[in-house]
Amino acid sequence: MAVEWKSEIKAAVPTRMRAAVLERPWQVEIREMAVPELGPYDVLIKVMAVGVCGSDVHYYEHGRIGDFVVEKPIILGHECAGVVAAVGSQVTRVKVGDRVAVEPGVTCGRCDACKSGRYNLCPDVAFLATPPYDGAFVEYFKHREDFVFPIPDHLSFEEAALVEPFSVGIHACKRAGVQAGSRVAVMGMGPVGLLTVVAARAFGAAEVYVSDLEPIRLEAARRLGATAAINVKEQDAAEAVRALTGGEGADVAIETAGNPKALQSALMSLRRGGRLAIVGLPAQDEIGLNVPFISSYEVDIFGIFRYANTYPQGIRFLASGRFDVKSLVTDRYPLEQAKDALERARTNKSGSLKVMVYPNGLPMSG
Amino acid sequence: MAVEWKSEIKAAVPTRMRAAVLERPWQVEIREMAVPELGPYDVLIKVMAVGVCGSDVHYYEHGRIGDFVVEKPIILGHECAGVVAAVGSQVTRVKVGDRVAVEPGVTCGRCDACKSGRYNLCPDVAFLATPPYDGAFVEYFKHREDFVFPIPDHLSFEEAALVEPFSVGIHACKRAGVQAGSRVAVMGMGPVGLLTVVAARAFGAAEVYVSDLEPIRLEAARRLGATAAINVKEQDAAEAVRALTGGEGADVAIETAGNPKALQSALMSLRRGGRLAIVGLPAQDEIGLNVPFISSYEVDIFGIFRYANTYPQGIRFLASGRFDVKSLVTDRYPLEQAKDALERARTNKSGSLKVMVYPNGLPMSG
Amino acid sequence: MAVEWKSEIKAAVPTRMRAAVLERPWQVEIREMAVPELGPYDVLIKVMAVGVCGSDVHYYEHGRIGDFVVEKPIILGHECAGVVAAVGSQVTRVKVGDRVAVEPGVTCGRCDACKSGRYNLCPDVAFLATPPYDGAFVEYFKHREDFVFPIPDHLSFEEAALVEPFSVGIHACKRAGVQAGSRVAVMGMGPVGLLTVVAARAFGAAEVYVSDLEPIRLEAARRLGATAAINVKEQDAAEAVRALTGGEGADVAIETAGNPKALQSALMSLRRGGRLAIVGLPAQDEIGLNVPFISSYEVDIFGIFRYANTYPQGIRFLASGRFDVKSLVTDRYPLEQAKDALERARTNKSGSLKVMVYPNGLPMSG
Amino acid sequence: MAVEWKSEIKAAVPTRMRAAVLERPWQVEIREMAVPELGPYDVLIKVMAVGVCGSDVHYYEHGRIGDFVVEKPIILGHECAGVVAAVGSQVTRVKVGDRVAVEPGVTCGRCDACKSGRYNLCPDVAFLATPPYDGAFVEYFKHREDFVFPIPDHLSFEEAALVEPFSVGIHACKRAGVQAGSRVAVMGMGPVGLLTVVAARAFGAAEVYVSDLEPIRLEAARRLGATAAINVKEQDAAEAVRALTGGEGADVAIETAGNPKALQSALMSLRRGGRLAIVGLPAQDEIGLNVPFISSYEVDIFGIFRYANTYPQGIRFLASGRFDVKSLVTDRYPLEQAKDALERARTNKSGSLKVMVYPNGLPMSG
Repeated sequence: MAVEWKSEIKAAVPTRMRAAVLERPWQVEIREMAVPELGPYDVLIKVMAVGVCGSDVHYYEHGRIGDFVVEKPIILGHECAGVVAAVGSQVTRVKVGDRVAVEPGVTCGRCDACKSGRYNLCPDVAFLATPPYDGAFVEYFKHREDFVFPIPDHLSFEEAALVEPFSVGIHACKRAGVQAGSRVAVMGMGPVGLLTVVAARAFGAAEVYVSDLEPIRLEAARRLGATAAINVKEQDAAEAVRALTGGEGADVAIETAGNPKALQSALMSLRRGGRLAIVGLPAQDEIGLNVPFISSYEVDIFGIFRYANTYPQGIRFLASGRFDVKSLVTDRYPLEQAKDALERARTNKSGSLKVMVYPNGLPMSG
Repeated sequence: MAVEWKSEIKAAVPTRMRAAVLERPWQVEIREMAVPELGPYDVLIKVMAVGVCGSDVHYYEHGRIGDFVVEKPIILGHECAGVVAAVGSQVTRVKVGDRVAVEPGVTCGRCDACKSGRYNLCPDVAFLATPPYDGAFVEYFKHREDFVFPIPDHLSFEEAALVEPFSVGIHACKRAGVQAGSRVAVMGMGPVGLLTVVAARAFGAAEVYVSDLEPIRLEAARRLGATAAINVKEQDAAEAVRALTGGEGADVAIETAGNPKALQSALMSLRRGGRLAIVGLPAQDEIGLNVPFISSYEVDIFGIFRYANTYPQGIRFLASGRFDVKSLVTDRYPLEQAKDALERARTNKSGSLKVMVYPNGLPMSG
Repeated sequence: MAVEWKSEIKAAVPTRMRAAVLERPWQVEIREMAVPELGPYDVLIKVMAVGVCGSDVHYYEHGRIGDFVVEKPIILGHECAGVVAAVGSQVTRVKVGDRVAVEPGVTCGRCDACKSGRYNLCPDVAFLATPPYDGAFVEYFKHREDFVFPIPDHLSFEEAALVEPFSVGIHACKRAGVQAGSRVAVMGMGPVGLLTVVAARAFGAAEVYVSDLEPIRLEAARRLGATAAINVKEQDAAEAVRALTGGEGADVAIETAGNPKALQSALMSLRRGGRLAIVGLPAQDEIGLNVPFISSYEVDIFGIFRYANTYPQGIRFLASGRFDVKSLVTDRYPLEQAKDALERARTNKSGSLKVMVYPNGLPMSG
Repeated sequence: MAVEWKSEIKAAVPTRMRAAVLERPWQVEIREMAVPELGPYDVLIKVMAVGVCGSDVHYYEHGRIGDFVVEKPIILGHECAGVVAAVGSQVTRVKVGDRVAVEPGVTCGRCDACKSGRYNLCPDVAFLATPPYDGAFVEYFKHREDFVFPIPDHLSFEEAALVEPFSVGIHACKRAGVQAGSRVAVMGMGPVGLLTVVAARAFGAAEVYVSDLEPIRLEAARRLGATAAINVKEQDAAEAVRALTGGEGADVAIETAGNPKALQSALMSLRRGGRLAIVGLPAQDEIGLNVPFISSYEVDIFGIFRYANTYPQGIRFLASGRFDVKSLVTDRYPLEQAKDALERARTNKSGSLKVMVYPNGLPMSG
């Protein structure tokens, strides 16, 4: 139980710790370093579970994502949960011993984006594992208290770490107006796509049509609530969705694959007045979209960048236990095998769903 | 005239039929009359199940609701479902033999309200069982095809009839912005309140707090997904909700009781920036509301009048089978006992939830 | 004055009339035909002014627009205003002698699009001058009363005819959320673009940046309220807008040119969280859009197809007299010169703005 | 510390300054005190113009507003503009010598309200002249840079100070959805009401109906763009608005008087589907509202508390010069006569509109 840990954890905060550091592309080393000092509003997180995200793998392979370039060694990992190990002098929201989910981007709170409620667009955000900021493949890190969220006892650290990719799905569903009874197509069944299926169900979607080319992912989607699975090796996704909706088209389509064809299919699967959320980041800049269709069907398109104001909502929803998101975790590694975790995520796309790293020891029961 | 009748049903369409007619307050008689003629866009509904609504009981007792006065004998009943028995020459949306839910208000389609998507505010709506329009306590009635919605085979007529009060809950949740993870207070656990609980869950509410003074209704609410039940004989509802939310207040409150105190509690249970939907129609006109609270908390208040564009959504959601709404039906009567059904609904508020009338015979298995 | 006309107009309704008929591409003939009979909800319009739209010119040249193919002779013209010459038996909204603007698309009022307030997406709309429906290059035509809107005495028929293209601008501003103080870029200064400038100012835009390649159109835009004019022969429009907003980007961009480059510039001119409305219909289907920009800036994109619920609003605004939209009319032709009007609009893009046809005689003072 | 001061201003920053201090109700004294020290993100404002608000007068008379109690001497005044006299080490948004408008409430940027874009609901806001925070009846005060907004040269300090009450009107219009062509009723023509008229016109309202009982205020409203003025001594405001809209009712009503009857009239003046914004703070808590009307007309009601994200928008709009808001300033006092200014505002409601105080000298030309 959480409260019992309090003293022992306080006692357990060391001055030195280990981290998995990406020295340069392909090279991850375990380094020892000082446990960070806390400012007045900081919380020291003892990291219990960290999901490996596609962006971690991308930095590991390429050393950059767009304008974000790894110019010095960096600690990866931003989908994380842990225990509060210490708090700064002014912290009031959490206390030592609290089990918490961590929202990875700390925003300025003072720019137009922040003030208008779209803090995910803050140009000065400090986001874990995004250069020049370090991430969570480490035993401890500090974080501003307002981005640290207590979780109920029965929510596991793994589930709490999954609130991060789940938040992307929530944000997409919110912006695209998924509602009770909606018919939603989700393209791409990587972890974000799978959690978008959960989010769509959480928002009340009556039917969720999913597409991918890996059977394992389509099966996982079905377990998480998809009502129809389209293997794009066998069917055109837009045509399949249109057939599934009696020719009418989906109310909402959400593209999570970052694939031009998937994006085009998502668009063309919509009904008149349908809404498209673009989550996936394609490799190329320009993608051809059917503009006369957008106009004549009065489609709304919403670009999705991370999320805002989703954590309490996401925690409450996962805590309800309605969906078995834990089944998404297919591979587990201790901190010292962080490189193996990254390699697993990189190479086993047809077998793994979510790979997790445990900086303070593997959980006892998988 | 439709030639494509399913033969067994065609054979069954008689020229004469029976109806339960409210001759004057308290007096209901079974009358025989002609089965109606169809216009080109009309559908003939063989009525299989009709819920008794509070408004039916009110007309039965008082002969009027506000400006709507029963000036000549009227057939009551507007929450209904049935089978398509015949269709007009231009009908394309349904065919003979289809099992259907009936949206009771037929709108003009040409006024500002209709054109702006708020057809529930159409001043020229013809609404079943609202003077001067007859309702559904009858073997057959005709209805314009665009307000007749096919239902899947596994949805019972009772459930399909419940789409009507469920629609009120859907509309309230939609206007008040209930979302995945929302914390919602629903005041008043009559049938509309109970179905609003279902709607709130359908929209993804993580927590639903309900209030009433009848234990049977609070228990029913729990079965349908309420996470906390407040007996207003024992607790102040606003204070109870505030306590349940750690002092913060609910995101959304929905008043369905038509009770001034319940309305005031609903308002005062909200968080800063909370939203209130007013569904219940109080007996008196003026109700004192805390205006400085509305201003300083920037509450949004939404008046709710019936619903619009809810039927396909509501059918899809009930068809998902996630909630056991059938358990709401506590009393069943054949057409000839329509008066008993009205009396039951009028007098057994602490024992009955939804009373149903079956103009074409009681269902075989309750 | 309008009311004085009443008797003389009634007397003046003949049984035969003239129309300008497009027999086939490039061939327009003046034909005589019967004045139409009225149904109970119909209004007979004596046509006083009709604007020539790009779509009229397109049918004149190509005999089709996309899936709409002219398969038999058709009367063009849909931007029109006139006088009520006769009314059907059930008409209540207008009376003989009323001066009116005509909203050209008559919708079914019963489909999902109509019921949800987006009747511009009605698949069964009967739209003037869109095959197979005739238009307004004719002395009289009939129209359902709910799409006929009285105008104040001081609004000219020309201005009332301009409510149609103005409606497109209103609809785009409404969907894209133009507000008091907004900074709006409008690409393409054809008549719709110019009236979108007026609409943006009507919605309170503080700054309106416009682009085109014709100086006459850029000058007209300035007269109508544009605060900066960008000649795309000289400057990149996106860069120019970015410079005009101190590097930040516009709040809203509206593309009206139907030009791929203009669309791309509109997108790239936006700030983080900006909104793009796509009004112009490009000749090709697929246009390359910068998807990573859409995602990382969380752009909203809104397809625009005609308009809905704009007429009373548009009439009230033009009646305020704040902008000199009459100056848009550069060329005037009587009905018998309808072909000349089409040719003028087709060939004089650098000199003409809006070409008008007057089926019942040229106005006395331009 | 800022080195780039305009020299003449730098020379002018003293170490001591004068302030008008409310010692207790009715007692205002001129005190000398130290010019404040700046933190890294602070800006030192040399105050040039401060409007007297009803809340200032209320604290002056009663020593409290609701839960806000003046427990020690306080400096009043929060509607202010001035010149940047010095900047903290990290300030980037403004520089010494900039003429600026000051948004008076500095928010935490970290609570749910701030993060969701509704920072006006921040429970930890530090708002000028609201206990325990001092205000602007002083020669200099410091303010966080993100609430200090540069103004163009041609906008006067008086106009810049008026951006504060104008912001209330903007926020009300935004929340209540005033649009181009809207018909808006504004009840109560105090300064906030008058600036709400300007805001409604700025948002494109075609018709603005105003009510008050002071002819001078109704005349001022007409000058600022009201299209009809209702003296509530002579007419019932709701009936008058209904008549002015041909029986239909207004699209939006905004109550700014804090008067129960005005609020009731505002509500009852609405059309079906109309929207009500409550700006005025009534003296009593409970006000009787017609709830059946709210339900059956599906009215939306929006509580309004201050404003958020309005300053750049408000400055841009006032800078356009379209409305003569300067004419609102009827009385001008130097700092040492701050008490006279408060008395003038308190006692001359039928003669004064906005009373201004000039802590650094009266402007040369009124």
